[in-house]
Amino acid sequence: MDVFDLPAVDDLVRAALAEDLGAGDLTTRLTVSPQTPARAEISPKEAVVIAGVPLIAKICAAAGGRVSVTPQVADGTRLEPGTLVATLAGPAQTLLAIERVTLNLLQHLSGIATLTARFVAAVAGCKCRIVDTRKTLPGLRVLQKYAVRAGGGFNHRLRLDDGILIKNNHITAAGGITAAVAAARAGAPHGLKVEVECTTFEEVDEALRAGAEIILLDNMSVAQLAEAVQRIGGRAVTEASGGIALDNVRAIAQTGVDIISVGKLTHSAPAVDLHMTLFLQ
Amino acid sequence: MDVFDLPAVDDLVRAALAEDLGAGDLTTRLTVSPQTPARAEISPKEAVVIAGVPLIAKICAAAGGRVSVTPQVADGTRLEPGTLVATLAGPAQTLLAIERVTLNLLQHLSGIATLTARFVAAVAGCKCRIVDTRKTLPGLRVLQKYAVRAGGGFNHRLRLDDGILIKNNHITAAGGITAAVAAARAGAPHGLKVEVECTTFEEVDEALRAGAEIILLDNMSVAQLAEAVQRIGGRAVTEASGGIALDNVRAIAQTGVDIISVGKLTHSAPAVDLHMTLFLQ
Amino acid sequence: MDVFDLPAVDDLVRAALAEDLGAGDLTTRLTVSPQTPARAEISPKEAVVIAGVPLIAKICAAAGGRVSVTPQVADGTRLEPGTLVATLAGPAQTLLAIERVTLNLLQHLSGIATLTARFVAAVAGCKCRIVDTRKTLPGLRVLQKYAVRAGGGFNHRLRLDDGILIKNNHITAAGGITAAVAAARAGAPHGLKVEVECTTFEEVDEALRAGAEIILLDNMSVAQLAEAVQRIGGRAVTEASGGIALDNVRAIAQTGVDIISVGKLTHSAPAVDLHMTLFLQ
Amino acid sequence: MDVFDLPAVDDLVRAALAEDLGAGDLTTRLTVSPQTPARAEISPKEAVVIAGVPLIAKICAAAGGRVSVTPQVADGTRLEPGTLVATLAGPAQTLLAIERVTLNLLQHLSGIATLTARFVAAVAGCKCRIVDTRKTLPGLRVLQKYAVRAGGGFNHRLRLDDGILIKNNHITAAGGITAAVAAARAGAPHGLKVEVECTTFEEVDEALRAGAEIILLDNMSVAQLAEAVQRIGGRAVTEASGGIALDNVRAIAQTGVDIISVGKLTHSAPAVDLHMTLFLQ
Amino acid sequence: MDVFDLPAVDDLVRAALAEDLGAGDLTTRLTVSPQTPARAEISPKEAVVIAGVPLIAKICAAAGGRVSVTPQVADGTRLEPGTLVATLAGPAQTLLAIERVTLNLLQHLSGIATLTARFVAAVAGCKCRIVDTRKTLPGLRVLQKYAVRAGGGFNHRLRLDDGILIKNNHITAAGGITAAVAAARAGAPHGLKVEVECTTFEEVDEALRAGAEIILLDNMSVAQLAEAVQRIGGRAVTEASGGIALDNVRAIAQTGVDIISVGKLTHSAPAVDLHMTLFLQ
Amino acid sequence: MDVFDLPAVDDLVRAALAEDLGAGDLTTRLTVSPQTPARAEISPKEAVVIAGVPLIAKICAAAGGRVSVTPQVADGTRLEPGTLVATLAGPAQTLLAIERVTLNLLQHLSGIATLTARFVAAVAGCKCRIVDTRKTLPGLRVLQKYAVRAGGGFNHRLRLDDGILIKNNHITAAGGITAAVAAARAGAPHGLKVEVECTTFEEVDEALRAGAEIILLDNMSVAQLAEAVQRIGGRAVTEASGGIALDNVRAIAQTGVDIISVGKLTHSAPAVDLHMTLFLQ
Repeated sequence: MDVFDLPAVDDLVRAALAEDLGAGDLTTRLTVSPQTPARAEISPKEAVVIAGVPLIAKICAAAGGRVSVTPQVADGTRLEPGTLVATLAGPAQTLLAIERVTLNLLQHLSGIATLTARFVAAVAGCKCRIVDTRKTLPGLRVLQKYAVRAGGGFNHRLRLDDGILIKNNHITAAGGITAAVAAARAGAPHGLKVEVECTTFEEVDEALRAGAEIILLDNMSVAQLAEAVQRIGGRAVTEASGGIALDNVRAIAQTGVDIISVGKLTHSAPAVDLHMTLFLQ
Repeated sequence: MDVFDLPAVDDLVRAALAEDLGAGDLTTRLTVSPQTPARAEISPKEAVVIAGVPLIAKICAAAGGRVSVTPQVADGTRLEPGTLVATLAGPAQTLLAIERVTLNLLQHLSGIATLTARFVAAVAGCKCRIVDTRKTLPGLRVLQKYAVRAGGGFNHRLRLDDGILIKNNHITAAGGITAAVAAARAGAPHGLKVEVECTTFEEVDEALRAGAEIILLDNMSVAQLAEAVQRIGGRAVTEASGGIALDNVRAIAQTGVDIISVGKLTHSAPAVDLHMTLFLQ
Repeated sequence: MDVFDLPAVDDLVRAALAEDLGAGDLTTRLTVSPQTPARAEISPKEAVVIAGVPLIAKICAAAGGRVSVTPQVADGTRLEPGTLVATLAGPAQTLLAIERVTLNLLQHLSGIATLTARFVAAVAGCKCRIVDTRKTLPGLRVLQKYAVRAGGGFNHRLRLDDGILIKNNHITAAGGITAAVAAARAGAPHGLKVEVECTTFEEVDEALRAGAEIILLDNMSVAQLAEAVQRIGGRAVTEASGGIALDNVRAIAQTGVDIISVGKLTHSAPAVDLHMTLFLQ
Repeated sequence: MDVFDLPAVDDLVRAALAEDLGAGDLTTRLTVSPQTPARAEISPKEAVVIAGVPLIAKICAAAGGRVSVTPQVADGTRLEPGTLVATLAGPAQTLLAIERVTLNLLQHLSGIATLTARFVAAVAGCKCRIVDTRKTLPGLRVLQKYAVRAGGGFNHRLRLDDGILIKNNHITAAGGITAAVAAARAGAPHGLKVEVECTTFEEVDEALRAGAEIILLDNMSVAQLAEAVQRIGGRAVTEASGGIALDNVRAIAQTGVDIISVGKLTHSAPAVDLHMTLFLQ
Repeated sequence: MDVFDLPAVDDLVRAALAEDLGAGDLTTRLTVSPQTPARAEISPKEAVVIAGVPLIAKICAAAGGRVSVTPQVADGTRLEPGTLVATLAGPAQTLLAIERVTLNLLQHLSGIATLTARFVAAVAGCKCRIVDTRKTLPGLRVLQKYAVRAGGGFNHRLRLDDGILIKNNHITAAGGITAAVAAARAGAPHGLKVEVECTTFEEVDEALRAGAEIILLDNMSVAQLAEAVQRIGGRAVTEASGGIALDNVRAIAQTGVDIISVGKLTHSAPAVDLHMTLFLQ
Repeated sequence: MDVFDLPAVDDLVRAALAEDLGAGDLTTRLTVSPQTPARAEISPKEAVVIAGVPLIAKICAAAGGRVSVTPQVADGTRLEPGTLVATLAGPAQTLLAIERVTLNLLQHLSGIATLTARFVAAVAGCKCRIVDTRKTLPGLRVLQKYAVRAGGGFNHRLRLDDGILIKNNHITAAGGITAAVAAARAGAPHGLKVEVECTTFEEVDEALRAGAEIILLDNMSVAQLAEAVQRIGGRAVTEASGGIALDNVRAIAQTGVDIISVGKLTHSAPAVDLHMTLFLQ
């Protein structure tokens, strides 16, 4: 059972169709007969890492169930321009009605997978993971984080309820790193590690003494990161965040950090160019 | 009554909070007392055209209503880095809980407004409009199209039910441009104009003869666009689409087209960098 | 893909069943065995224009999917009393459970189609369209407007977001017809025509000068309508509204107006009499 | 706590606004400033029994909460044309945006109340009740049945789960009236009476012997009804249904039946004519 | 059509899956291949009266529809430990994903059925019914009341809208039992009996005189109940409530009351122990 | 911001009211005037640990907002019988309408808190935590897990997406404990510890070697648990589960396990007895 079988994804697909169709596809109703059959092919116009292929069948099912879908590639595959992603067959009216919703979703998710794959490739050979953040768009988090995995990345926590990440304000409110970590360990579910955001070496030292299991090194220079990793010496998992880009990610990875978290994977990945070609029959 | 008073926006805000909070903000619950008050300030770290400011109060209301929000700027304003967008005051727990959802929405909408404003600036002095498309993300269309307006752009149709846009497949299915336009005019609500997508001058001529009120000139070169505009000579509204970018939009505008539609305004605008600073009291 | 494949129609059907069934059909549970099979026939007891036939299969699917439905006529057909509309076969328990919801919807939609057809017949030979309004019942607009089309009528705008209709209050607020039309044209999506409601000839003249593309002639007498149509002379589409009834609609049509909008098509059409006969087996 | 405080009514109001507003009131946004204040008055143009007045405040709250509403009359009151129903004050934009939804609901509910009151008046002095049926429109049952009460009528069962009404098919399936009534009494919640639909005197006799507490006399002539009432002699509550109209309801009432159920109260009541007058300030 | 075909049950199943799965079953995704097939068997580890078997197929359908379910027993059957309840076959990933939701529901409903059956057995041979109350858990009432029936019990009213039960506060507010009963009879739908809660014999007498059709004898001792039943002498249905337990229910039944209502059937029934065994293939 | 401010809790409250009220409280409408004011007091009839007090105000708000609520105690407090939990003031109609929903929720949550507190008291002085499981009821998990915390317990994972718990079937599918742990560590978010369910000492040894961070000791005897804890010697967190009851939990705790998980906290806690007394004014 994958993410596409979740009831929430079904709800999202139905909402997307409702949003785009409103009372129905007016142009198509007026110009295309309900009896006209058609085939369609989806393919990229640029090199992409594809994500979201199983959504096509879900969208067609939600649009009345008269279209058959044959996926041609698996999510996470790197495709050259023109590669066939999926073929569809059914009433031309329905294929026209679902085109935009289908492409909107696939272009966005494949955009995330493609950008993630570029970050992953940039750190090839290093031991670190590229991970996402909670900087996602409303309603799309589960699919966006799936697309990160399709691109070879990993997920950070999903929500505010499934991870302990003690930041500056928590530290201030709790009265210091030591107190904050103690409070977190005293109350957190036993399956969660405690992560502490640090911006100085003193904070790193205190966090380690307090028992932090993950140290988030925020907005440090490459040199600072290298020194922090050294200092931590494997006593905690290390995560770098802030200002990560394709042109500095390899240098950051080479500092030895375990995790590099990249907000732009989900908040700023440009859509890739996918196309649906229709063949009326 | 603006877009932020729509019940659907309230639903979106609640869904966004539910998605990020799950069972609640675990780290904050364990490290911050419910009694701790705080203030917060939201401001950009780069120059932006802001959009979504009224959402802040809606998010705080949906999170229990204990936070007061004072907007400092109006949507559509161009802000320098560091300008105060809004101040918030209330329980530190709530401010921490709503931070990510608030920033995710504002960064995305302001990203769209900022990108739109760049396109609008690029065609300054030309008579054309920069308009959006249906290439939006599920659940976000109303807000994304609002953000385009905040950036100085205009909206194309909202859905498949509120505009007539006859494309290639409709033409084939209907048996030609003339037949398609006739069918559309015979059935379309009387308040809608008929738009026809054309890729050749012959199609343009036939569409005009058939009574098309808007001609969509798809993927034409600047030279072709100029000739098409000339040929149409004001007999129909002209719209250019396909391959529009910041570095070619002015040349396209100078062909005299009325409308330039840009998919990337909504599908690929990078998030802008906004920040929420918390002051514990 | 027609209106019955919209996710919103599926939601409506499920809500209708939930509303009528509550915790289930008590009488049927106590008196009819789950194993008893049955057939059912739906037919009108009076002459009707039928609308909503595809809903029968949707309702049965939403009620557990054990009933097969065979439609016998297409929506928009004029039926004599006793004509078979559809046959159903499945568990008697389910047929009894869905009877009322099915008839309630079909009787209402067919009532609208039948009344619309009477208005359409009344203006036979005239060039005008009979159109609906936004005077619909909550949750039913898409289906009610569909039923108007099934009866041979046309649709006015669907919502407040897909048409420009400048009324008296807009004119006052904007500072006159000229200013209101200018503001509308400056901001409206390019695919929408601008319509202005006028009650005097002076207003008609100003609206035309301002560039109105549709003139709504509100609550005028037949004589006034004829003079207005003359005066406009084809420079704008003309629409008559207010006080339209079966006994005056032909006279109004003969004034030469293009559009006659009739609120009662949707707000006051009486239900037609449909019946479901069950055959236990 | 009345029907208007039910969460379901709040949901209905929000759905009605969403359906009519879509992405917002375009004409108003373009022609009316958000700062323009206004007052509005709602009043009937014909004599009505009003129903739904508390909805006005609910609608305004759901539309952002910036409009104050002052009801002037209570539901169930008979109003002469021109009587003030309610006054509203707030932003002109919001008043324009909620006008249609408000009137649509009030016109429909007052239509039901007004028609019910005519039936109630027609049987004045008789001991019988005028009651509604399950012939309602999807999503509106609770409000429609409320409107029947506002007009002086009474409610039949709300759903299939809160009443026992044994009809012809239940009788056939159970193997006769005696068996059907026995099965119903054996399983029905102890607070529900058993009602049996009869079309002949033999059925009436068997139903009484079987212990039916209510006899539904379906589609009988006035003479048959009178004889049936006589025969039953107070041993069961009597209900007449089928073919009830304003011109025969008094004769039916005079047969002595206890209950007269009228489907058209909810499925065919024409909307009454209400008007909202706006005063820009 | 049974309770499991209600749209509301489908909604509940989807919500239950969403609540347990969140973004998906992480452990299973990481350790089990999507291609691994499996079979599963559900059986009790203790003697139970089973309830909820049809839910298994509904849950599997809502989880993507790749699992086939073969029920082995009918709801309401008494099962010895180890009896096969149902077999399932499909992807191991899906079977693992639905296990907990399935067992949670079946264990709870079977717990209610099992406890109800113990109460029913305790009054074997007496004429009284064991009935439930409105003391149920949010969202589960329809299924909980179904489980009571599966255990041999009966249902009291479902909601506040489908029964008349006049309690102490209603009596005070109405100005006495006589007034309260009169008001209820004057307004209640004709299919509902009027029930009055009494705690003294004087109240019983007044309720009978006022025309109460059911007398709820609240928190009376066995001796008092016996005297009350005697006094009422069949003039009304009698219901005992308050402090009913397995060790006193038979004595209460032997007083001759018609109905014994037991809150703990739904608010305190312990879950029974069911198990799902998986066989990887 | 606590759990009661979550939009999902608001949805639950509204659904609970809708489920109990249906079309409204019929008895109250007929016997109590809308103008009658009242006060109410909620208090327990037995010793309880209270949970859910903030829900009372949320329920009253969702029922129209005319009732003021004054909580008298905080959640998690141990109360003697008769202690005042909260006072309410408002229309008698509303207080009667919300009574059952309010008590149902508070009785259930306080039942969980009370049972949890008994388990916590039973292990007083031991270092172990009492934790809950995923054996919860649909729609109620967040509140049930909150109630466990109110009773002094701790939470296990919330859903299948926020914890790694490798059970028998995962081990089989992955090809052994070592492979399963490796797969989990390779893919799991870095903030989650890997937990492995073991039933033999050999499995414990393999899990430790594989790097398991938590060992779930399932259905072991007290002696086996003691030996397992010894053997693990602090190299992993230890959790005991299966067959935990009030009469053996202290012996289990004394084996030195860190965590004792108890399904019955949420699936079988009996409701406590709370009462709402109404004072009409």
